[in-house]
Amino acid sequence: MSNQNLYNPHVSVDCVVFGFDGEQLKVLLIERSINEQNELYNDKKLPGSIILNDEDLDEAASRVLTELTGLKNIYLSQFRSFGGPDRTKNPRDILWLENTTQLKIGRIVTVAYVALIKIDRKIQVKNDNTQANWCNLNEVATMNLAFDHAKIINKGLEYIRHNLDIEPHLLFELLPRKFTISQLRSLYDTVHQTTSDVRNFHKKVAQWTYVVALDEVEEGVPHRAARLYKYKK
Amino acid sequence: MSNQNLYNPHVSVDCVVFGFDGEQLKVLLIERSINEQNELYNDKKLPGSIILNDEDLDEAASRVLTELTGLKNIYLSQFRSFGGPDRTKNPRDILWLENTTQLKIGRIVTVAYVALIKIDRKIQVKNDNTQANWCNLNEVATMNLAFDHAKIINKGLEYIRHNLDIEPHLLFELLPRKFTISQLRSLYDTVHQTTSDVRNFHKKVAQWTYVVALDEVEEGVPHRAARLYKYKK
Repeated sequence: MSNQNLYNPHVSVDCVVFGFDGEQLKVLLIERSINEQNELYNDKKLPGSIILNDEDLDEAASRVLTELTGLKNIYLSQFRSFGGPDRTKNPRDILWLENTTQLKIGRIVTVAYVALIKIDRKIQVKNDNTQANWCNLNEVATMNLAFDHAKIINKGLEYIRHNLDIEPHLLFELLPRKFTISQLRSLYDTVHQTTSDVRNFHKKVAQWTYVVALDEVEEGVPHRAARLYKYKK
Repeated sequence: MSNQNLYNPHVSVDCVVFGFDGEQLKVLLIERSINEQNELYNDKKLPGSIILNDEDLDEAASRVLTELTGLKNIYLSQFRSFGGPDRTKNPRDILWLENTTQLKIGRIVTVAYVALIKIDRKIQVKNDNTQANWCNLNEVATMNLAFDHAKIINKGLEYIRHNLDIEPHLLFELLPRKFTISQLRSLYDTVHQTTSDVRNFHKKVAQWTYVVALDEVEEGVPHRAARLYKYKK
């Protein structure tokens, strides 16, 4: 084996954190500013960074998420690594990386993690240089995103859908402790990018033994108060 | 961010290829010989190698599998990356890596792939320096394996089990085109590490609409010939 082609890329972690505000699925993104010949260029990126020399991948993902968003004790699932040579084809991404790391950067393999959290979790919206914001998932396609982060977000969503079939509890992480069937349907439809018929959805939920009706209804709503449900593990 | 802790590991791919011989689940391993102070030490490793500078991760996995085993056009699924700093804690692994790559090696992040193939696929058992063999999966725990390859094999098996629930066709990749229920049960039990009751298993299969009974029975068997079935997509 000749060694001259054995490339030594950098390795990073990126976190796709999904939240739900009752209507839309959101993803947590970091604002990025790049000084290009004295003009500021702004776009967004996933919370992520290059791994440190003494940490495991899972540790790196938790550390980076906390550093950039203030979020702690989030259950992050590693779902896929992205490592195409064309990931760093945009000179702007290289410029930004070299400015922030003070390293010469060629290629980066990134290990991607996904998490679902309640949107009322407190995000540290601003630390020294970074600002984290919830962005509507359906606006991601039209946003300027760093690297291949749009693709990573899509793959993260696919992973979530795929795993909801076997781990339905993931869905309930995104709802308040007591929720209406309408809220559940809205979340379900958003994740699956579908529009469920109201009556059929009620039938479907009736078969989910882990969704339990409470003797309570919504309070303080202008419309007829709907029954509340909870998730039972 | 200080750059002195931003480590630059090597990146490799490793392939966990499972086969089934009708009785046992097997995994494809490469024989490894290391010259330690003029004594040969032998152990086994997964087919894997460091990625080249111009290839994507998926490309690297296919290339490496073909180079080391002769297998072509295998459907490899990326399932997880492993990157703990302790992956290269064994000096023997470093010695072997530095001898084969002529590179100074510190830490390696590996991206692992899994495949299920029929065991009658032709393996190129010997090329210049490597020999690939099918090894019984239940003997892996007692084998000397390189790096964390025993752990990677276990995680690969977990991934397969997890995904069989949603992609049952994966199971049928391992069976002959026409199979008996007894063969199917043997494979199912091996993958799930269980022992199904014969009658209950027949009931379970009766619900799998994709398993179709043929008007044919086994030929040339010493016992009573069993009915043959096929998988319908």
